[in-house]
Amino acid sequence: MTFNFENSKKLALGKKDKSSIRGVDAPIRNLVSFVNAHDDYFTTSSCSGRIVLIKDEDKKQKGLFLFRTHEKISFEKLKEALEKIAGEDKKIMVMFKQEPCLLVVSCRDKDSQWKLFSFARNNGWKKSGILSVDKKFLIELMATETISFPIIDGGKILVSDDFLKLVLEKANKNLKKGWEKIKRLEWLMEKP
Amino acid sequence: MTFNFENSKKLALGKKDKSSIRGVDAPIRNLVSFVNAHDDYFTTSSCSGRIVLIKDEDKKQKGLFLFRTHEKISFEKLKEALEKIAGEDKKIMVMFKQEPCLLVVSCRDKDSQWKLFSFARNNGWKKSGILSVDKKFLIELMATETISFPIIDGGKILVSDDFLKLVLEKANKNLKKGWEKIKRLEWLMEKP
Repeated sequence: MTFNFENSKKLALGKKDKSSIRGVDAPIRNLVSFVNAHDDYFTTSSCSGRIVLIKDEDKKQKGLFLFRTHEKISFEKLKEALEKIAGEDKKIMVMFKQEPCLLVVSCRDKDSQWKLFSFARNNGWKKSGILSVDKKFLIELMATETISFPIIDGGKILVSDDFLKLVLEKANKNLKKGWEKIKRLEWLMEKP
Repeated sequence: MTFNFENSKKLALGKKDKSSIRGVDAPIRNLVSFVNAHDDYFTTSSCSGRIVLIKDEDKKQKGLFLFRTHEKISFEKLKEALEKIAGEDKKIMVMFKQEPCLLVVSCRDKDSQWKLFSFARNNGWKKSGILSVDKKFLIELMATETISFPIIDGGKILVSDDFLKLVLEKANKNLKKGWEKIKRLEWLMEKP
């Protein structure tokens, strides 16, 4: 069966959000609306960038995420989460990850795919790539800012408070950079 | 002018290596040879995965890399590099980064592009994407393993030796995972 863009779009937008957090996170909500309002596109996945504490496992499985936010966070809030996690499980390794903004978009055809992909890649979404060229015309748009390191091992927090404060300052700044890239893409989508 | 695959391949393989380190790093050399020996492909960039110490700057510029290796490294070697860097410049922030293996390939046409891209993506190179669909049929193949955090600020090493040892163990393990993915892709390229 060939890919029918109109049907797939209707189906996708009608479906209940299946992501593990309900709904679209606030900083990317406008961009998702703009993309979905465009005749040639619909989003299949989105994230405005996030800070997470995640179990260090190779395979995706339930319960990996121990903490997750799409907003800037304070040292106190992070420290509280870390102490709780370290106290609860003395065996696991936990990673701190700040991940960049992400948008997966299904496009009507090759031309519309290339247009949005080029827009994004030339406007800060530098880790973007085309994921399919025949059927769904999928693109994954992603920015670059990222932090990732082990933060808890065997029930112990591995780094000092001073280090955490500095990392958080950088992670929060990275989230903000992502939001600026989202705004920029919004602006490009709005143009005729 | 339309893209001429044969000419571009000849030109690319004839050119002197322009990367800032001369030649291709050992763990990915066989894969690069296999790809270039194939009628439908040539590589334009490659990295077997690396551990670097890099100045934290938004813009690419000369002199950002303060330390770089494609091999597993010992705690002693890393510590020596860190102390040297921290002693030499009291102003900069330096990031520790362990980056995954990477291969950029120009393909003859859409079919050969899709074939190699799907191969890679289904065999651990999960951050792969298509970069152009009309002219050069470029794909960027990339694995997932990554570590990234600030390690020096204002002439001070920000983390403890114990933390460094644990991070290095993980970073070295990630390099090894990358080499296994390179081997796997070699094996796929070798098959008729």
